[in-house]
Amino acid sequence: MPVPHLATALTGPLLELERRILEAQPRIEHWFRSEWHNHATPFYGSVDLRNSGFKLAPVDMNLFPGGFNNLNPDFLPLAVQAAMSGVEKVCPEARSMLLIPENHTRNTFYLQNVASLVHIFEQAGLNVRLGTLNPEISVPTELTAANGAVLTLEPVRREGDRLRLADGFDPCIVLLNNDLSGGIPDTLSGLEQNLLPPLHAGWAVRRKSNHFEAYDKVCNEFAGLLDIDPWTINPMFSACRGLDFQSRQGEETLADTVSTLLERIRVKYREHDIKEEPFVIVKADAGTYGMGVMSVKRPEDVIGLNRKARNKMSVVKEGLEVSEVIVQEGVHTFETVNEAVAEPVVYMMDRYVVGGFYRVHTGRGIDENLNAPGMHFVPLSFESVCLPDRKGSPDCPPNRFYAYGVIARLALLAASLELEATDPDFN
Amino acid sequence: MPVPHLATALTGPLLELERRILEAQPRIEHWFRSEWHNHATPFYGSVDLRNSGFKLAPVDMNLFPGGFNNLNPDFLPLAVQAAMSGVEKVCPEARSMLLIPENHTRNTFYLQNVASLVHIFEQAGLNVRLGTLNPEISVPTELTAANGAVLTLEPVRREGDRLRLADGFDPCIVLLNNDLSGGIPDTLSGLEQNLLPPLHAGWAVRRKSNHFEAYDKVCNEFAGLLDIDPWTINPMFSACRGLDFQSRQGEETLADTVSTLLERIRVKYREHDIKEEPFVIVKADAGTYGMGVMSVKRPEDVIGLNRKARNKMSVVKEGLEVSEVIVQEGVHTFETVNEAVAEPVVYMMDRYVVGGFYRVHTGRGIDENLNAPGMHFVPLSFESVCLPDRKGSPDCPPNRFYAYGVIARLALLAASLELEATDPDFN
Repeated sequence: MPVPHLATALTGPLLELERRILEAQPRIEHWFRSEWHNHATPFYGSVDLRNSGFKLAPVDMNLFPGGFNNLNPDFLPLAVQAAMSGVEKVCPEARSMLLIPENHTRNTFYLQNVASLVHIFEQAGLNVRLGTLNPEISVPTELTAANGAVLTLEPVRREGDRLRLADGFDPCIVLLNNDLSGGIPDTLSGLEQNLLPPLHAGWAVRRKSNHFEAYDKVCNEFAGLLDIDPWTINPMFSACRGLDFQSRQGEETLADTVSTLLERIRVKYREHDIKEEPFVIVKADAGTYGMGVMSVKRPEDVIGLNRKARNKMSVVKEGLEVSEVIVQEGVHTFETVNEAVAEPVVYMMDRYVVGGFYRVHTGRGIDENLNAPGMHFVPLSFESVCLPDRKGSPDCPPNRFYAYGVIARLALLAASLELEATDPDFN
Repeated sequence: MPVPHLATALTGPLLELERRILEAQPRIEHWFRSEWHNHATPFYGSVDLRNSGFKLAPVDMNLFPGGFNNLNPDFLPLAVQAAMSGVEKVCPEARSMLLIPENHTRNTFYLQNVASLVHIFEQAGLNVRLGTLNPEISVPTELTAANGAVLTLEPVRREGDRLRLADGFDPCIVLLNNDLSGGIPDTLSGLEQNLLPPLHAGWAVRRKSNHFEAYDKVCNEFAGLLDIDPWTINPMFSACRGLDFQSRQGEETLADTVSTLLERIRVKYREHDIKEEPFVIVKADAGTYGMGVMSVKRPEDVIGLNRKARNKMSVVKEGLEVSEVIVQEGVHTFETVNEAVAEPVVYMMDRYVVGGFYRVHTGRGIDENLNAPGMHFVPLSFESVCLPDRKGSPDCPPNRFYAYGVIARLALLAASLELEATDPDFN
């Protein structure tokens, strides 16, 4: 596994943040332990981070993570151990798991991710099989992943309140690796089996703005613990509703929201003496896969979008229409690997960081979204686990990764608060 | 890390056992999950295994494991994660730990083990300091481990029901890496802090015969699960009490016990068509460090011991006198590494296997104790973690290590039952 050469010209503020995170490690871990004592950990998740040299912040939190195939295989045992811990919490009696992947089964890299997940849960000691919600698959079907792994997808059957396979396979746990962008299928409603993550974590219900609202709370508490400006780890945002990109309805409101947020960023940049040009990201409040995402530097950029841009913004995965967006403070990516722009992604299971990788893209700028359709990123797995090296400098790779792991876990904790706050059974 | 060349001429039976363990992996893991749901996991432990080609069995279970320095450093993150899990169970509010090592501070390899433990618990996010029970250390004292790591040992103070250090350090957890062979010091009795392992795990109270009695139960259940003869994973034993090696009191009884056990082994050897010569190990029922251990092939070998042998048998660590022994079925070590005899040792934290190593000794026979005083073993860490590779052959290294991890966890579970059965607060 090559060691990524981090060419980031790390300036004062981030080094200072990393130093503080490192010094406060026992306090941070103690705080996380107490928080996880009071809040249920999401079963798994991944967090997209951005490191601008003056700010280190999550920009997205995925509760149905793909990309496990991009992690350093040397550290998969950490994922297995974390999976054991997660299964023990959810259902210590579990013998078997039905894993339900996305329907886009032609993406052979995604299939590799599915194969990695199967491997992890098998090593954790479960009987794992793959069920599909794809109506096009009516019999057990073999698919081959990019690395040659062969997977058998089987149509699921709803029998009473249980999900089964045709031969009677009756799983204890149903694990979704399908983010339900297309809505919640009846097949999954009211199951008596353990369904993970819960249905309201799917993009049919979930809103990024709820997540970042929860993240605000988590950040403010954490920033108090470390005595830092929470802004250094938190991207500002505003939600904007009632849009119709095709008919241009609401574009003035959107421009106002963009304008206000850009002004708030300028104030923070002046306060922290930052010379960069502020920008915001406009993206669908529900949805994933980098569809419906725009990088915007001026409010007028969202007025009078051409047809292509309107099309791009108006629909995300599975044809879901976009009427709600989140306008999020853009965080420059100042990290580069071999002169290519790099964005770290951190993976977690239960409450543990199990690895991560850099999404490396040569053709994109530091203020662009790196997770875009058709994007050909090169994954570069972290060369060490996210544990601190107290004797190293604050920005040596283990400590850099530790800081990433801490910020990612803040986002995981925010997801936990978010799922509590949006749980239909308790609201 | 070199890959150990396992020269074991593995004959049918063990391959068969390894195959069954591998095939039953989901059943085994499910069973462990249920067991750990009902029994508290010891905080940490190590198990000495023996692999004779026809039998794979634990011969000792250490609840105060040294040797963490011998594990593959690449896998220390597994220990850190397991430590996080263990701490979360015992005391989620914990911020700090006082680690109390053995008093034999001149063993610089042992000090390396202490440094490894400090590192693991620091990475898990605790403030860790070292307290000593050694009356010769009255002020904070720096000691240097074999690898140059510097440790500061500080005298402990009992203040009310709490253990503290001179500057007021007031740990949440007191972790013993001292097996209390010399008795339970008043300083440790009735502490309100979390004391791990509990005092009755120390050799002042603990008896190997209690452990192997519990192991009998665990094995019988496990053997039923796999449909194997429990003898293939369980060394037979008898306890023998009221001995005085110096005055030769009880040696006839001991010879009878040896004779009976040798006969029982012969019966099993005939049943399994094994041509090897049976032997038994006579060792102190309480104690460790391979003192007071004899390998015996004939009952008369324990009659009329010469002075040297009597001295060797009569006293173990810290001058503890031996009046109780356990006579244990000897398990040949048929594993060799580069033609040297090798004995695997497996390390666990919480309920997780975190690594292991081979104790490799060129100067000893296959029926001798490899953990003897003055023994200069070469540690050879396992080159992979103890997770199965279902696509590999039953005896490929990952699967061999998985089987070792399973048997070691049976011993850990037995230790859990043993500690329940011998807990003075519940008996």
